[in-house]
Amino acid sequence: MIDETVKEQALIRLRKIEGQIKGIQRMVEEEKYCIDIVNQITAVKRALEQVALMVMKRHVESCVSEAIKAGNSTAKIDELIETIDRFVR
Amino acid sequence: MIDETVKEQALIRLRKIEGQIKGIQRMVEEEKYCIDIVNQITAVKRALEQVALMVMKRHVESCVSEAIKAGNSTAKIDELIETIDRFVR
Amino acid sequence: MIDETVKEQALIRLRKIEGQIKGIQRMVEEEKYCIDIVNQITAVKRALEQVALMVMKRHVESCVSEAIKAGNSTAKIDELIETIDRFVR
Amino acid sequence: MIDETVKEQALIRLRKIEGQIKGIQRMVEEEKYCIDIVNQITAVKRALEQVALMVMKRHVESCVSEAIKAGNSTAKIDELIETIDRFVR
Repeated sequence: MIDETVKEQALIRLRKIEGQIKGIQRMVEEEKYCIDIVNQITAVKRALEQVALMVMKRHVESCVSEAIKAGNSTAKIDELIETIDRFVR
Repeated sequence: MIDETVKEQALIRLRKIEGQIKGIQRMVEEEKYCIDIVNQITAVKRALEQVALMVMKRHVESCVSEAIKAGNSTAKIDELIETIDRFVR
Repeated sequence: MIDETVKEQALIRLRKIEGQIKGIQRMVEEEKYCIDIVNQITAVKRALEQVALMVMKRHVESCVSEAIKAGNSTAKIDELIETIDRFVR
Repeated sequence: MIDETVKEQALIRLRKIEGQIKGIQRMVEEEKYCIDIVNQITAVKRALEQVALMVMKRHVESCVSEAIKAGNSTAKIDELIETIDRFVR
């Protein structure tokens, strides 16, 4: 489960990302140069990936770790790898 | 340059993405299951990629095409490929 | 550490990938259609990602799990997340 | 269509990639550290992406450019964007 530190940091980043999405909307409305719009989308994609990695790390530290200690981690590890698989593509 | 159709479609998608980002913020605030948060981030990443591809397509149809017809497309094609390079990684 | 099953399956896939790389070399030599070459590269990229996920899963099941049970998993989890980060981009 | 320069450079890179794939096979056979194997796969993935971008660039400079000059580029541009879409995910 997400702890207070990850929660706070993730929320700060997600609010920044929300601002960036609004910025991209303005760029589209004002018909800015296409390449600049795509580059800005790339920046947001990276920022989102960083949030996902932060949450994934916390997940390994908490849920996956507990399942491993309890000796029943098969389903948790399968789920983690499937999530990384979807995330990568 | 972005035309009216792409502009409208991109804005519809970007507003939906803004809503999804807010949804992820709520998921983090309510300490939802980490895997569900990551999967939702993956969904937004895909949605952003679709907007980028839409804008990139329009860019090839307009700016790149005009440069090719004018016989001076070297810089435009370099810029396009560098943008795809950043976008891919 | 890699076990026999993962080792065998990864090697089967890596040999297939080697064949696909040779196939792409032939496509380039024979000046096949560019789009077909790129699509074939995309297929190999996916195949490589599957091998990486297979190895990563085994890593979580073995090294990361042992570190968690031993109560000193911080470095192992950091390393895992950094590896996923490089892999994603 | 691929020209001699791109052909030569792509082949040099693809032969290096073939060597890297064989290197990964050896790493798996010798049961090297999982993280090192995954990082090596990431390196090959990047190298493959560079070849794809090189071929894609040439494609825009030749086939797509010719179609644009001939005034019938719709199908070519659709095909290009679909290829980038598959390549990105």
